Amino acid sequence: MAPEKEVQGGVEWRVTVPEGASAVVEPRPVNGWVDLVRAWLMAAAGFGRKAWLIGADDPRKVVHGVKVGAALSLVSLFYYTRPLYDGVGGWAMWAVMTVVVVFEFTVGGCLCKGFNRAMATVTAGLLAVGVHWIASRAGETAEPVILSASVFVLASAATFSRFLPAIKARFDYGITIFILTFTFVAVSGYRVDRLLHLAQQRAYTIVIGVGICLLVCVFICPVWAGQELHLLVSGNMEKLADSLEGLAEECFMEDQGRQLPSAKSPGYKCVLNSKASEDSQANLAKWEPPHGRFRFRHPWSQYLKVTAAMRYCAYCMEALNGCVASEIKASEKMKSHLRGVCVKLSSDSSKVLKELARSIRSMEESRSIPCLVTEMKRGAQELQAALRSLPEQLMSAGGEEETTADGGGGENQRVTVSLMEGMPIITAACLLAEVSERVEGVVEAVGALAALARFDRKKAAFASVAPQDESATPQRQEV
Amino acid sequence: MAPEKEVQGGVEWRVTVPEGASAVVEPRPVNGWVDLVRAWLMAAAGFGRKAWLIGADDPRKVVHGVKVGAALSLVSLFYYTRPLYDGVGGWAMWAVMTVVVVFEFTVGGCLCKGFNRAMATVTAGLLAVGVHWIASRAGETAEPVILSASVFVLASAATFSRFLPAIKARFDYGITIFILTFTFVAVSGYRVDRLLHLAQQRAYTIVIGVGICLLVCVFICPVWAGQELHLLVSGNMEKLADSLEGLAEECFMEDQGRQLPSAKSPGYKCVLNSKASEDSQANLAKWEPPHGRFRFRHPWSQYLKVTAAMRYCAYCMEALNGCVASEIKASEKMKSHLRGVCVKLSSDSSKVLKELARSIRSMEESRSIPCLVTEMKRGAQELQAALRSLPEQLMSAGGEEETTADGGGGENQRVTVSLMEGMPIITAACLLAEVSERVEGVVEAVGALAALARFDRKKAAFASVAPQDESATPQRQEV
Repeated sequence: MAPEKEVQGGVEWRVTVPEGASAVVEPRPVNGWVDLVRAWLMAAAGFGRKAWLIGADDPRKVVHGVKVGAALSLVSLFYYTRPLYDGVGGWAMWAVMTVVVVFEFTVGGCLCKGFNRAMATVTAGLLAVGVHWIASRAGETAEPVILSASVFVLASAATFSRFLPAIKARFDYGITIFILTFTFVAVSGYRVDRLLHLAQQRAYTIVIGVGICLLVCVFICPVWAGQELHLLVSGNMEKLADSLEGLAEECFMEDQGRQLPSAKSPGYKCVLNSKASEDSQANLAKWEPPHGRFRFRHPWSQYLKVTAAMRYCAYCMEALNGCVASEIKASEKMKSHLRGVCVKLSSDSSKVLKELARSIRSMEESRSIPCLVTEMKRGAQELQAALRSLPEQLMSAGGEEETTADGGGGENQRVTVSLMEGMPIITAACLLAEVSERVEGVVEAVGALAALARFDRKKAAFASVAPQDESATPQRQEV
Repeated sequence: MAPEKEVQGGVEWRVTVPEGASAVVEPRPVNGWVDLVRAWLMAAAGFGRKAWLIGADDPRKVVHGVKVGAALSLVSLFYYTRPLYDGVGGWAMWAVMTVVVVFEFTVGGCLCKGFNRAMATVTAGLLAVGVHWIASRAGETAEPVILSASVFVLASAATFSRFLPAIKARFDYGITIFILTFTFVAVSGYRVDRLLHLAQQRAYTIVIGVGICLLVCVFICPVWAGQELHLLVSGNMEKLADSLEGLAEECFMEDQGRQLPSAKSPGYKCVLNSKASEDSQANLAKWEPPHGRFRFRHPWSQYLKVTAAMRYCAYCMEALNGCVASEIKASEKMKSHLRGVCVKLSSDSSKVLKELARSIRSMEESRSIPCLVTEMKRGAQELQAALRSLPEQLMSAGGEEETTADGGGGENQRVTVSLMEGMPIITAACLLAEVSERVEGVVEAVGALAALARFDRKKAAFASVAPQDESATPQRQEV
């Protein structure tokens, strides 16, 4: 929250790494050209290092770059090869443009844009030819007026339609191409007088461009938006599980260990921050054909419900993290009383999440989920019981330690005071119970996903989430 | 989470309204053409109604559509006017394309894209001419090889560079245009032999296209990304304040009133969901010149720190909402003991947020913030005191009511049990204290914003956030 620093007589290099953290390289005074060049080289080296890290982290990104280069080289053959030049060469420019604009990282993105481009070009072309035909019948003076008016009205309406969420999500790119093509055909028709030939040429080039894009995109190391989403969801669920365990450990750790915060805990932040990429991947996955283990009409939108349930957990964990961050002053006695049940509950919840993640990743219904959920609910009940027995525990401990008791009433007084001072740890325990309850929402969402996506049942039977043992149902309102 | 319904022999219309809720229009059987037409008309009417609602909600969206239409009509004049046609008419297509692609809703978006397009075209054009010059010196056979290789290498590298977050955020569109222009010039130069003339033509058309875009965008009802962000942040802060009050009221409301949940509370969800639009607006605002009350180098990125602090509050409120949703079984006695302090604290915190929102909106430093913060801290202290005195209160109340006391120990036992049963309400109170603490983070972030943006001090003096009264500092660890 500090203002941007101005370093006098020096250069400050702030390297933003993908995760959003930033590393500041110490400024040094610049003396003449040598240092300036050195500074530039260092900046270039930093940039190169960053690029290298990104490439090393996900080599498919490098492959994507190479694929675009290959597709463009392929399409530019239309310029070099003379026979082809005489065919569509004059318009080969459009094929180049199609490749540059349509080629996306995922197959879904490529298909979405390719479809949008093709459909928008055909629709707008036909409409423009129609308008042009009407305008040409209206006489020399009226023709430009009709054409201009049609361009104005259609461009305005199409631009406005982009604000409709349903259209924005699917046809945003198509609208751009629609306006572009309509304007080109409607307006250039006034000059060129070869409208149908022009339309035919554009259709060829679109087919060539989109075809090359799809061939390269699908057949050379394809990246499927659906699979990305699938892996993102299961990966984030594992992070959530690790994070939950880490938070409980940190919160109920013995005081001497508190200097070493668990490296696991920030995992839930990934869940909080990945909504945008999940939405876009689910959107693109719908354009993709069946691939790998994903059938036709795989329930991609159900993944969004799973991630919403995960975020619901993560919000609660964020509040729990607030408890961890505050210095907890609860007596070691109270902590040790709650530590066992809390760590157990968090580990139970974490096990459920990990099993769900495994079930999603392998696309197999899990046989152990009902047991794990029952175990987690039992853990929640134990936590409630521990909370309820807390005053007695403290009382008996107090009685044992301090033998100079000043009567029962005073002791109870002390107990209630220490109870009230232990409030943050009790709040943490309650939040943990709340998280475990929200994990049940995740179980439900994943169960629906398993049913919709027809997860493999050969190895396992995914029983109902309802507890088999009625007595194990936690009485939520009491915690 | 239910699977998509298949309605046999009927049509189901699911209308998704912008907020994400969906209204399902009852399906009706389709009997022949009349009903089919009627169904289509109903769908069209539904679509029209939605469009009307969006337009009525923000008429600037309609104006934006009209602006795009006007800019396109203006640029298509280049086709109709013969003298102009002879000048750049053949390339006027590029001006049309520039207008369609560059015209964005906000001035910042338009400037960003215009700058990207212009810079990328110039850079790529110069580079391509250089490569072409080298290739033409290398002989008939080597020329296409050099050109193809340069296209391949540059397109691959440029595509990969998009994965660098810093480049993605600012120059994504520029990279597309860079690849496009480089390919065009490098490849078409092989045929056209009029490279410099071609480059000059493209420069003209870009200038014309971007010029028309900017003229229309800036001078006809401009929408500034900066102002949008400014209003979004202050508006969301007010929603957060209302929401906080609403949640506390719901949570501590008397039981007979619980059927009516406050309409205010979901406001914090706006804060949770608006990260993407805040990020993009802050990004675009940096491209904008000084406008209205915003000076050159207005600290747009500080707004993101304010919204991060607000989200930090909202996470905690989400957990609090979980408490509200659960049926709270605390005794009316306990509730009424805590109600006063909790509602006061939430109203104090809410007042702070509202004052901050007012301060941001009017861009004036607020004189009352330090007092309000002190008041809020006092409220937090009172809440702590109330929590600490809770056992005594319950004890005395229990003593008054139940005269058939079975000794002091039994009474204390009862008290501690009822204490433990009231856990959700105590957790809610603790979360409320945590929210009020996080509100201090918002105060700090807004204070930094006020300093960086030099908010108006004429009317008020924005004192330090540090409490004037040291004794008023809440002892956080005790709640």
